[in-house]
Amino acid sequence: MNYRIEKDTMGEVKVPSDKYWGAQTERSRNNFKIGPEASMPKEIIYAFAYLKKAAAQANHELGLLAADKKDLIGKVCDEILAGKLDAEFPLVIWQTGSGTQSNMNVNEVIAYRAHVIHGGKLEDEKKVLHPNDDVNKSQSSNDTFPTAMHIAAYKQVTEITLPGIQKLRDTLAKKSAEYKNIVKTGRTHFMDATPLTLGQEFSGYVQQLDNGMRALRNALEMVRELALGGTAVGTGLNTPKGYDVLVAKKIADLTKYPFITAPNKFEALAGHDAMVELSGALKRVAVSLMKIGNDIRMLSSGPRSGIGELVIPDNEPGSSIMPGKVNPTQPEALTMVCAQVMGNDVAVSIGGATGHFELNVFKPVIAANVLQSARLLGDACVSFNEKCAEGIEPNYAIIKQHMENSLMLVTALNPHIGYENAAKIAKKAHKENKTLREAAVELGLLTSAQFDEWVRPEKMVGSLD
Amino acid sequence: MNYRIEKDTMGEVKVPSDKYWGAQTERSRNNFKIGPEASMPKEIIYAFAYLKKAAAQANHELGLLAADKKDLIGKVCDEILAGKLDAEFPLVIWQTGSGTQSNMNVNEVIAYRAHVIHGGKLEDEKKVLHPNDDVNKSQSSNDTFPTAMHIAAYKQVTEITLPGIQKLRDTLAKKSAEYKNIVKTGRTHFMDATPLTLGQEFSGYVQQLDNGMRALRNALEMVRELALGGTAVGTGLNTPKGYDVLVAKKIADLTKYPFITAPNKFEALAGHDAMVELSGALKRVAVSLMKIGNDIRMLSSGPRSGIGELVIPDNEPGSSIMPGKVNPTQPEALTMVCAQVMGNDVAVSIGGATGHFELNVFKPVIAANVLQSARLLGDACVSFNEKCAEGIEPNYAIIKQHMENSLMLVTALNPHIGYENAAKIAKKAHKENKTLREAAVELGLLTSAQFDEWVRPEKMVGSLD
Amino acid sequence: MNYRIEKDTMGEVKVPSDKYWGAQTERSRNNFKIGPEASMPKEIIYAFAYLKKAAAQANHELGLLAADKKDLIGKVCDEILAGKLDAEFPLVIWQTGSGTQSNMNVNEVIAYRAHVIHGGKLEDEKKVLHPNDDVNKSQSSNDTFPTAMHIAAYKQVTEITLPGIQKLRDTLAKKSAEYKNIVKTGRTHFMDATPLTLGQEFSGYVQQLDNGMRALRNALEMVRELALGGTAVGTGLNTPKGYDVLVAKKIADLTKYPFITAPNKFEALAGHDAMVELSGALKRVAVSLMKIGNDIRMLSSGPRSGIGELVIPDNEPGSSIMPGKVNPTQPEALTMVCAQVMGNDVAVSIGGATGHFELNVFKPVIAANVLQSARLLGDACVSFNEKCAEGIEPNYAIIKQHMENSLMLVTALNPHIGYENAAKIAKKAHKENKTLREAAVELGLLTSAQFDEWVRPEKMVGSLD
Amino acid sequence: MNYRIEKDTMGEVKVPSDKYWGAQTERSRNNFKIGPEASMPKEIIYAFAYLKKAAAQANHELGLLAADKKDLIGKVCDEILAGKLDAEFPLVIWQTGSGTQSNMNVNEVIAYRAHVIHGGKLEDEKKVLHPNDDVNKSQSSNDTFPTAMHIAAYKQVTEITLPGIQKLRDTLAKKSAEYKNIVKTGRTHFMDATPLTLGQEFSGYVQQLDNGMRALRNALEMVRELALGGTAVGTGLNTPKGYDVLVAKKIADLTKYPFITAPNKFEALAGHDAMVELSGALKRVAVSLMKIGNDIRMLSSGPRSGIGELVIPDNEPGSSIMPGKVNPTQPEALTMVCAQVMGNDVAVSIGGATGHFELNVFKPVIAANVLQSARLLGDACVSFNEKCAEGIEPNYAIIKQHMENSLMLVTALNPHIGYENAAKIAKKAHKENKTLREAAVELGLLTSAQFDEWVRPEKMVGSLD
Repeated sequence: MNYRIEKDTMGEVKVPSDKYWGAQTERSRNNFKIGPEASMPKEIIYAFAYLKKAAAQANHELGLLAADKKDLIGKVCDEILAGKLDAEFPLVIWQTGSGTQSNMNVNEVIAYRAHVIHGGKLEDEKKVLHPNDDVNKSQSSNDTFPTAMHIAAYKQVTEITLPGIQKLRDTLAKKSAEYKNIVKTGRTHFMDATPLTLGQEFSGYVQQLDNGMRALRNALEMVRELALGGTAVGTGLNTPKGYDVLVAKKIADLTKYPFITAPNKFEALAGHDAMVELSGALKRVAVSLMKIGNDIRMLSSGPRSGIGELVIPDNEPGSSIMPGKVNPTQPEALTMVCAQVMGNDVAVSIGGATGHFELNVFKPVIAANVLQSARLLGDACVSFNEKCAEGIEPNYAIIKQHMENSLMLVTALNPHIGYENAAKIAKKAHKENKTLREAAVELGLLTSAQFDEWVRPEKMVGSLD
Repeated sequence: MNYRIEKDTMGEVKVPSDKYWGAQTERSRNNFKIGPEASMPKEIIYAFAYLKKAAAQANHELGLLAADKKDLIGKVCDEILAGKLDAEFPLVIWQTGSGTQSNMNVNEVIAYRAHVIHGGKLEDEKKVLHPNDDVNKSQSSNDTFPTAMHIAAYKQVTEITLPGIQKLRDTLAKKSAEYKNIVKTGRTHFMDATPLTLGQEFSGYVQQLDNGMRALRNALEMVRELALGGTAVGTGLNTPKGYDVLVAKKIADLTKYPFITAPNKFEALAGHDAMVELSGALKRVAVSLMKIGNDIRMLSSGPRSGIGELVIPDNEPGSSIMPGKVNPTQPEALTMVCAQVMGNDVAVSIGGATGHFELNVFKPVIAANVLQSARLLGDACVSFNEKCAEGIEPNYAIIKQHMENSLMLVTALNPHIGYENAAKIAKKAHKENKTLREAAVELGLLTSAQFDEWVRPEKMVGSLD
Repeated sequence: MNYRIEKDTMGEVKVPSDKYWGAQTERSRNNFKIGPEASMPKEIIYAFAYLKKAAAQANHELGLLAADKKDLIGKVCDEILAGKLDAEFPLVIWQTGSGTQSNMNVNEVIAYRAHVIHGGKLEDEKKVLHPNDDVNKSQSSNDTFPTAMHIAAYKQVTEITLPGIQKLRDTLAKKSAEYKNIVKTGRTHFMDATPLTLGQEFSGYVQQLDNGMRALRNALEMVRELALGGTAVGTGLNTPKGYDVLVAKKIADLTKYPFITAPNKFEALAGHDAMVELSGALKRVAVSLMKIGNDIRMLSSGPRSGIGELVIPDNEPGSSIMPGKVNPTQPEALTMVCAQVMGNDVAVSIGGATGHFELNVFKPVIAANVLQSARLLGDACVSFNEKCAEGIEPNYAIIKQHMENSLMLVTALNPHIGYENAAKIAKKAHKENKTLREAAVELGLLTSAQFDEWVRPEKMVGSLD
Repeated sequence: MNYRIEKDTMGEVKVPSDKYWGAQTERSRNNFKIGPEASMPKEIIYAFAYLKKAAAQANHELGLLAADKKDLIGKVCDEILAGKLDAEFPLVIWQTGSGTQSNMNVNEVIAYRAHVIHGGKLEDEKKVLHPNDDVNKSQSSNDTFPTAMHIAAYKQVTEITLPGIQKLRDTLAKKSAEYKNIVKTGRTHFMDATPLTLGQEFSGYVQQLDNGMRALRNALEMVRELALGGTAVGTGLNTPKGYDVLVAKKIADLTKYPFITAPNKFEALAGHDAMVELSGALKRVAVSLMKIGNDIRMLSSGPRSGIGELVIPDNEPGSSIMPGKVNPTQPEALTMVCAQVMGNDVAVSIGGATGHFELNVFKPVIAANVLQSARLLGDACVSFNEKCAEGIEPNYAIIKQHMENSLMLVTALNPHIGYENAAKIAKKAHKENKTLREAAVELGLLTSAQFDEWVRPEKMVGSLD
């Protein structure tokens, strides 16, 4: 490979000659060979592009950066956002905990790419922009990286997680309405219980997802607060007055999201509780989806020796050895994602709890886990929705058979003959493998006609009139 | 021990003759010898007292329960709430996952104690109230236990957790104001960084706790929704019309908290995402307190070979072998609590994720962990506040010495001589163990007078004017 | 309440006059009002009793402690182990992270109780033993508390956890043998699969528990290493030569367990990885038991609209509203315990990861969680074994019906007609709700006689001969 | 893009014409668009290559597969292992929980690539090998995927994790020996404590890592047991007698690792406790490394206002705003990895706990997390070792100064003047900012000569002679 020589405050470094990055990126690339390369999430890089462009605009507006420099920075940021420079960001999550080197990677790529756009060559010692003095002006890694985290997380949750959940929620709501008259046996403790409608059962899922989206939105309220303007330790050293408010506004303008400057920059650098809270909300959604996914696969279990009340789409051959087998693969993918999100939340929490003094230095691991959780949940909801939920069909015959067999219909008799007498009927029917009616009449506790009047499953799915 | 014979639908059971509980409680006591006895949190029992009284009132108002029965139920509930019947609740957390037996424990104690109040004897076969048909009227374990969980958690967080955090937050805010002019060295990555004021450092803690309380209050919004009225599977079977709204109102009246009926009872029985969310908010607070506790103990480390910028109260001899040793014991207790809360959150999440069909049967483990987390956090904040935070004193001499020595004051030169030249000064000073001024002048990058003008720590704690 | 005045190096403290504890215990009691009182596990106190007696013996043998003092210390330790002094240990888990105050609590109670045994009065200023100079001789909290943790954990796992698991394992092994000829349908992905015997299914549980016990025993190998002799920072300062080996031997003699001195005392004070490893092994067992508990409750689900292949004992009425309902309450208690153990493991790991320099100061939270996990798992296995596993009965009729219906018997045809043809048969049978034989013959892929020869479930439960 | 038509038992699918995969892979690719594509770990694919080759050999040896088919399969497997077919495995982790589709991906690629090697064309309807009937002969996804998990995990831990830890351990052991005479102040509770040598401090780290490697090796003992031969539900249906033992031997021969057939295939398919145990052991190592990483960064903190007893290599500029700043970036990367591993362990445990009946269907998420943890820990140890640990230097001046200042040297006086008198000296020295000697003499508790005789730090780093 061909190299050129780049310098930073520590001396010279050989950099691949065709790459836009500089000395600090190259040092980091060599110093941190941990896991697959370029693992720093692309969402973070793109968020940096918004931020650098916004900072350049704010610096210009406040008289600190010339118009041509501002424009050059903006131009490269646009290229980054268009995905044209993806190969220029080789760094990993497992670097310094402040993400300094990814900030410098962005600074270097912007400075050097700008130089080339401006007509220069990568080998030129003097470049049109300086990575620190120009691109990083009025900034520090300590406030840019958390800002990038918030921008990326806000966008990911808003653009991927919430729409994915919403799609699934809407399908389940539609099914809930369609199934509103399908009376089925309830199940508690995995045991037959009093009836409800299939629509009611699905309405619980809808409520879970509605509540989960509410929790995500609550958490986003904190995530929209940006650290930028705090610089090294939160004081805003080397920033012009009004910069923090202005640069947040610029970011809001560029992203079209309601970002604001954080009310307290010391908290915004030293703690990442907003990300911890967001991760907690994602975990809450995972908990709900684990339940929903499990229900769907158990309700569709069988086809002959399970519950079998639902039929889900057959998307692929289910077994490499058992011919004709079909499996609930979408619920499986969904629940695996949920397990991952629950684990990620622990990693995020440990990272969040381990900041010290003026800086939390678990930023990249926090960011990577939150972004992964947000992405996986959103994608899994879309997949589960399209390939499974939309195609769910009730198996009417089995639902009816299960419902009519249920001994727990006896509960309808409580107000008429009391809990203890009702229990006698259920126990006799169970023991002697009879119907409730047979047992009730044999016990002389009521007549067959009374049984018909009182035990009406379709009347048992709501409160008394 | 003397026994009397009690019966339930399964047959006869011997019960200690002086105890108010009945057959089902006794069965559970014998069937679940797991861990220490009577581990079911008392807060749950008290919450049941509110709800049983409220249910009796609602049943009466809706014409289902006679006034004298309602009054008797209310009377026993008041005794429970006064702590007079604590010894009557011997059951453990590790019972059926619906908490059925604790619901029945309450039903039995109310029915039998009422019978005694009413002039009867425990040995009487016929009692004035029936545990199921009267005390449990219009209820199921499946809706009462989650209602008790919500009542207990709402109260615990409102009465213990939030006030505890608020006390600590107020002390830290007071300190933050007091210390607003104490300039000190910042620290990032455990390394000396640019200065800030001690007041600014503390303001970050205040913001963390404010945000944490906000998250708790958001979560409480969901916890105030009550499952009661859903009965066995969420349909409200065997409840009178309007009962769910009315009974929630009664509970709100009795507790003075804004409880409302849950909009969807299927979700309220089958998922406990509101508790998972609350646990997540408690965990978020734990993450913040872990950071604060660690900072305080590290800032007060030494006394001679640590950071030593803060002095915290000496509350007890610190060592059984090292005479005169004093340790940061309050931060240690606080951070241990945080570790517990972070673990509890995982238990709650696993429990929350593992409900099936119409019922989550991890209710007791969810309740016990949330209540413990809420209690420990509140208590630990009070303890840390009173025995540590209130007594914090700055060590002015050390703070000054550290601040003046910091090589990172060089950052103030960036706008004047650029990042690279500033770096040369810092490196020279570090290598040759000189002051920044000496290094700067020796390098010829600025004059001593310029140094005095530009490097003024007290001007470095805010953005540029 | 009446008080007496006690002193320590910090001054005077009022102590309840009838209590054996002294100034430092009382300070801690007042300084740490976090959670319920006396929460420090009794197992830790008892372990301290072994340790203090052993230390006195070792100190005496090495010429540092007079015989009468040694005897007095031993006498009080015996009283503690007999449970006579339980009320003298009021401290909580949430104290200093080194457990110093619980060590001092033990030192004080031994010194003062010895004084009374010796004929003195609690009010006497001079006592026959000094808590630090005699009882704590050659010790520090920093090496005694971790030693007590290891003694307590070793005993708990050996006496409660392992025997509990073993009982359940033996029952399951017995059932496995009994059921070795009961051919049933397998289930993968909750879907019908090829057959196996019920005995085979249970043999998997047995293997899981065998492997889990192996993991526990591996972890105990590290737990039997004791920190005692390291004193304050691991160097063994103020201990006589040979003391560490001797005192471990004394503890081994007193407890009858193979304790040895830790090869590296610095590790033994500063890290608690042995406890983390033990917690991990307990968590591994919890993971196995979660699976077993879930299987049992799902296999016994129904009774009419579930799987219903097993019948488990009816131990209590299952519902306060649904008469005659019986629930799998023991599996529920068991799986709730598993969720707790999984959460506890996170708390232990966070505590274990957060030690610094010469001491980990999350000792009490680590100890409390490991001991709780060990106790709950052992108790829950005993309960589940006695009240559920022992009483499991196969429901032969249902097992047979499910097995014969299974479309996955078609897998036996793979070697004869290939996977793709076999799939055609299964799909046709499923779609047209026919038997496999009907579908096979209709498709002309084989004759009815061939079907009988090739599809023999009882031949499908092992590899080909 | 150009397509060809592939078929499976469900019908026709369009597949990119230049790809070796078939219908089932393509279905999965379209059905599971969750997260980045091709996320299924390459280590799993390579492990499949070993097992498919071994299975072909075993099938051939047992008379079920012709020699030419066996050779073709082996040839493609060798290509896979040489990395030549990486682009043929596009599937994601988040697919069916049995990994069926990745097994089929491997089957299809082997069958179709073999066909091309054999001179055929991808468009040929009839191929030389059938993915199910030949490549998957005597196998099921249900036993191949867990076998691949075990092979991949065993290799990863043996080839990456253990050597990485060993390297770091050896460096620390070397440092420990070098530093064996450097007496320094100990620190407990972050507070000055009695002295030890820097070598002793490092010896604790060495012991932690030795113990951690022991735990990993213990866990590998279970991981070397392979499920292969259990086929669909553990019975070994459609496998020839002796196949399981033979195929494990073949895998052992090919990999040079001591793999054996699992003693119970039901456990090996339905639970993944061996992976859970391995994850627990990895987590235990993470807990140790978190402690070590934190110690190193705190001991090297400063350079002027921290502890500063160690100097670690400067690898890169530490700050984008603070010139000349150097940060402990390697400890940061290491501890971030530890947080990730601790979170991954929760995901693995949840996955492991959620298997049902004859199959655990959280296999891919379990595999991916264990492999990531193993890789990250190994890589991070290497990075930390090379870029940090090897370059650690003591700062002798600061170490000496801290040690001599320590008030806890007073502990040496306990045996001479008692704990209480020693405490008076320490407190006086602290309060009046004096040396211990001054305070001791002023208090008249000993002479200056006695002080010199008794308080000798270099004598305080071991037990008494």
